[in-house]
Amino acid sequence: MPTFQTVRGMRDLLPEEAETLNFVICKARETSQLYGYKEVVTPLVEPYELLSAKSGEEIRSRMFIFKDLGDRTVALRPEFTASIARLSTTALKSEPKPLRVFSVGSVYRYDEPQRGRYREFWQSNFELMGSNNPEADAEAILLTNSLLKATGLRDYTFKIGHIGVIRGVLSQENVDDKVQSAILQRMDKKEYDEAFKLIEQEKCRTALRGLLELKGGTPFETAEKIKKYVTGYDKAEAAADNLLEILQLATASGCPVKTVEPSFARGLEYYTGMIFEVNVPELDIALGGGGRYDRLIEVFGGESTPAVGVAHGLDRIALAMQMQKTALPTRREKTAVVIPVKPELKAEALKISQMLREAGVSVEFEVMGRKMGKALEDADKRKVDYAVIVGERELKESSVVVRDLAKHEQTTVKIAKLLEKIRV
Amino acid sequence: MPTFQTVRGMRDLLPEEAETLNFVICKARETSQLYGYKEVVTPLVEPYELLSAKSGEEIRSRMFIFKDLGDRTVALRPEFTASIARLSTTALKSEPKPLRVFSVGSVYRYDEPQRGRYREFWQSNFELMGSNNPEADAEAILLTNSLLKATGLRDYTFKIGHIGVIRGVLSQENVDDKVQSAILQRMDKKEYDEAFKLIEQEKCRTALRGLLELKGGTPFETAEKIKKYVTGYDKAEAAADNLLEILQLATASGCPVKTVEPSFARGLEYYTGMIFEVNVPELDIALGGGGRYDRLIEVFGGESTPAVGVAHGLDRIALAMQMQKTALPTRREKTAVVIPVKPELKAEALKISQMLREAGVSVEFEVMGRKMGKALEDADKRKVDYAVIVGERELKESSVVVRDLAKHEQTTVKIAKLLEKIRV
Repeated sequence: MPTFQTVRGMRDLLPEEAETLNFVICKARETSQLYGYKEVVTPLVEPYELLSAKSGEEIRSRMFIFKDLGDRTVALRPEFTASIARLSTTALKSEPKPLRVFSVGSVYRYDEPQRGRYREFWQSNFELMGSNNPEADAEAILLTNSLLKATGLRDYTFKIGHIGVIRGVLSQENVDDKVQSAILQRMDKKEYDEAFKLIEQEKCRTALRGLLELKGGTPFETAEKIKKYVTGYDKAEAAADNLLEILQLATASGCPVKTVEPSFARGLEYYTGMIFEVNVPELDIALGGGGRYDRLIEVFGGESTPAVGVAHGLDRIALAMQMQKTALPTRREKTAVVIPVKPELKAEALKISQMLREAGVSVEFEVMGRKMGKALEDADKRKVDYAVIVGERELKESSVVVRDLAKHEQTTVKIAKLLEKIRV
Repeated sequence: MPTFQTVRGMRDLLPEEAETLNFVICKARETSQLYGYKEVVTPLVEPYELLSAKSGEEIRSRMFIFKDLGDRTVALRPEFTASIARLSTTALKSEPKPLRVFSVGSVYRYDEPQRGRYREFWQSNFELMGSNNPEADAEAILLTNSLLKATGLRDYTFKIGHIGVIRGVLSQENVDDKVQSAILQRMDKKEYDEAFKLIEQEKCRTALRGLLELKGGTPFETAEKIKKYVTGYDKAEAAADNLLEILQLATASGCPVKTVEPSFARGLEYYTGMIFEVNVPELDIALGGGGRYDRLIEVFGGESTPAVGVAHGLDRIALAMQMQKTALPTRREKTAVVIPVKPELKAEALKISQMLREAGVSVEFEVMGRKMGKALEDADKRKVDYAVIVGERELKESSVVVRDLAKHEQTTVKIAKLLEKIRV
């Protein structure tokens, strides 16, 4: 007898959970349309080489990697960006810029399962390629705000940082690019002591430590403090200006930015500029996040292309909705069961069912051959609106019996008038 | 530099293809609602043991199998039925019957790629558990008809068979169950000579050969011929009666059944009764198919439960739509670009964009910082309806300039009246 368990870290979504996830997916797709992002579908199985090219040690070590029957080393995608970067250097290569691309689907990471974190999870992914202006960065934040608003979530906040500030300081202190990446990885895990150990020069260590300790006040106050602190580090200063501009554009349109954090880093090696996350108080893990990655497309063989992107954890958003008791819009369509009184009337009853369905009524046909009382009792339990009872006598007069299951009332109705009756 | 290729047998869907696939997925979901099927989401990665339990040698040998980091042997689902069977014996165990369950998503088989056949493809899957009545079988055919009609396909036909007829004859001739499965597998590949070789007794071979050669006439005529031919084989006779009843119910509701084929077998070992496929003349491979499998749930440790199911190849349906030049419904929503005349007006222009989006207008914000002429030229190429130009002078009067890109006309409009203007 085969196992009844799902694979560790994966789970079934029962109807209510599936409905919520689909609702969130639907809102993500609507958001993509409202912001002019074109949807593409990329394979779930990709060459390991592609997925590992720039995703960072952290994610590389947690991919589902295997060989297909053709001995190719492949992996399940842990995110969408590598696939989109590939597309932008192949099929979408000659598309005019800006290029806005949307994807949605499941992704896979071998993480330790915890609340809201599974090994199979769903993301919507937005990439905007071709612009290095702050309004492009702001757009990633704004569309995330639009998506969360559309799901009905009330209580969420944004956290913003800028990789360019930290890299700007480290570069000017002659810290090697790879060491910078290692430092950012440690910071992402909040292992600050480990991060500092990677820096040889005392002066640089002090500079970084001071930067990371800047805190407090409004997001604008923190951003201003950062700018002041990095005076003299040219690239870091430009980055701080950029951060301020993005912050201004995002908040002007009503995004709830709670903090600007100089110590904020994100797990993916490819970020080069602004980074952000969005959180709810009920969960330790972010509902979504993204940022700017201006050198990624080059890595995939494309022309140097500035780009900014964001991914949203759709099943996490669904979980947050549940925790914030966000109600789904209720369905309006009426539902019916259709019950033939005897077996000889099945074909006629099916025809009536088809007519109702073609008009948009959800119909469960009585397939159990139960006695009328049992069938009605079952329909009542399922909270169906109407029972349509197909009997011989009524059929002769082109009629059926319609029972309102909530009101316990029944009337005989001409089949030609049935839709009117049910749609009221 | 990483590879630019997708893994062999997998492909990217560009915006137009993705839109068509999403349209078909949407129609499948609507069909599930119209027929009262509840949607569940099951993992894409399942224990190998589960997926291989009853899916037949044919599919087993073509699964993507691997070990996860916890040394568990897992595989990518080649179909949905095993996962649904698991659910029906666990989380959905105490749900009242009939139980109608819907799933949709990608599935994976290591097939030789050809037109319409990829190693990653999309299925919608409908399972109706608890009924052994012919109206349940008919429902699987009817809902397939509804789905195909809803996609706009015009030219498709159904082919129906019945595993019970063949198994009925073979059982009464004392052919072992396993040998029967092997025979059906050969038949599915149209290797009839190989199939006959598996039968020891001459009498049985002759009986089967005669059965498979029955052909011609209308579906009803063929079904009647089958019934007559198997007189004396009790189980086969009952199966032939069942086939006739299902055929009657399906055609009464207008399903285009083209043929009843006594030699028709399907690749999955678990079928026990009626089986069917739906085809278009443009493709060699079926757009969907299914049938009855009354012993499957037991295999997964559940109570003996009659069941009937159907899976539809959604990307194949999308391909057939393309070949039959089926037009997608055109979008009605208006689109706009919003262009700030100078950098200082970005925040105001973003606010106006948000207002439009919240009202359902798709807005591409000018993120390239281009000169007005260039930006308008680009908007024109993208076939956007309106350009909203945000300038200082107009803003002072709470207005913007709206340019109708098709008509080459522009007017100054109060921001409060902007939505009216654009939605006309």
